[in-house]
Amino acid sequence: MTLSINFATIREQCDMREAVDVCLKHGITAIAPWRDQVAKIGLAEAARLVRENGLQVTGLCRGGMFPAADGTGIKAALEDNRRALEEAAELSADCLVLVVGGLPEGSKDIKGARQMVEDGIAALTEDSRAMRIPLAIEPLHPMYAADRACVNTLGQALDICDRVGVGVGVAVDVYHVWWDPDLETQIARAGSRILAHHICDWLVPTTDLLLDRGMMGDGVIDLPAIRRMVEAAGFDGPQEVEIFSANNWWKKPADAVIATCKDRYERLCQA
Amino acid sequence: MTLSINFATIREQCDMREAVDVCLKHGITAIAPWRDQVAKIGLAEAARLVRENGLQVTGLCRGGMFPAADGTGIKAALEDNRRALEEAAELSADCLVLVVGGLPEGSKDIKGARQMVEDGIAALTEDSRAMRIPLAIEPLHPMYAADRACVNTLGQALDICDRVGVGVGVAVDVYHVWWDPDLETQIARAGSRILAHHICDWLVPTTDLLLDRGMMGDGVIDLPAIRRMVEAAGFDGPQEVEIFSANNWWKKPADAVIATCKDRYERLCQA
Repeated sequence: MTLSINFATIREQCDMREAVDVCLKHGITAIAPWRDQVAKIGLAEAARLVRENGLQVTGLCRGGMFPAADGTGIKAALEDNRRALEEAAELSADCLVLVVGGLPEGSKDIKGARQMVEDGIAALTEDSRAMRIPLAIEPLHPMYAADRACVNTLGQALDICDRVGVGVGVAVDVYHVWWDPDLETQIARAGSRILAHHICDWLVPTTDLLLDRGMMGDGVIDLPAIRRMVEAAGFDGPQEVEIFSANNWWKKPADAVIATCKDRYERLCQA
Repeated sequence: MTLSINFATIREQCDMREAVDVCLKHGITAIAPWRDQVAKIGLAEAARLVRENGLQVTGLCRGGMFPAADGTGIKAALEDNRRALEEAAELSADCLVLVVGGLPEGSKDIKGARQMVEDGIAALTEDSRAMRIPLAIEPLHPMYAADRACVNTLGQALDICDRVGVGVGVAVDVYHVWWDPDLETQIARAGSRILAHHICDWLVPTTDLLLDRGMMGDGVIDLPAIRRMVEAAGFDGPQEVEIFSANNWWKKPADAVIATCKDRYERLCQA
């Protein structure tokens, strides 16, 4: 089974150890933890869990957050990203997922923020290549442009990849890109630079900008169509379920959530 | 003064007659009413208000909503759009603003919905040209792709304009397009096809996908920068304030809201 569980999906119910147990119970051996979840049980223990259970880490979430109001902030962000790369290496992650950051406090200069992002990624590439942990730029939905990520389309992310060079790719999360009229073209353009494929669904109505993502099948995204594009581009890695859902899935038992992920994946997410 | 008030901004406080009075009190002679507001006082009375007060109608909101689950729905949408064109003509509006519609009920076929939109616009162009009421495609923010408008970037709207021909242009609403990395290029490309320029602001945080728009200056949009692009493209019409704000501006007296619009416009919105 090429299903991965991003641990944000059950972050209110489980620590990383418990999340691994639930996944294993359902035969799922690919995971994507968040750095705070790793930190909570300790990096060495997290790495041991991965190694001893033969888990694939489809990505470590997350690096990024490059823009800052001053040089001190920019430097601090780079240092934090280097630590993230080290953690990703320790976990043998497929990539470090980058949520690149939005406007610095008080700024309205989105072009400037975008330049800071590109500069930050460029500054990380040497370490990233040396550690063999590729950087996965995750374009985020335009509704997050101000406060989470000023890279908002796959095309824009790939332009950065083109300029920054090898070792940098993209994470294609259906939630962020499903609406893009240029999606098929840009996924084909991405080719081998697709480092991760995240799934969930877009609910109608969506009641919260951040914490109301849907389970696959409960919304309007044509998941098999996007998976076909991703596979045609050459990506055959796991589909990683990442659902932020404060009022629904985070309130259900982790076992039930993962069972549902697996069921929906098997019935509704094949190319 | 080249300031226009879209009457959605004070829709909870005023009917169209009262909204006109508030605008006139502040020296504002450009307006953009909604069809339900026109219907409530009657088209003839609305037209009389416009004529006798020498008002510029910077747009009638709104036509569109083309996609439908079956032929009957598609035909009904076209008929409704023809009525909207007649109303716009009666009000001597600068354009009919099109919110094009999202996915038909139960559909996940956004490509299909986009084709329905283009077909619908193409079917209206003859009437639009005959009545001299240009159609203004308003690309809506991608967060509305499913349920309000599957045209989500200026580039996509202009591609439709290119294919459908003369008499069709775009409404550039900063709320919907401010995040677009391709904004400057596409505004330049639009040129004389810019039929309307809507302003408000993007709040951080935004607490509701639909009804939490900000007053100019309260958010992160660089309004003078976008106005410069719009003017460089050749548009010199009014800036039209359109704010949906259930928990803030809709709860204040209309007079205070319009006074604030005028003050912010004068201080913060010039190119």
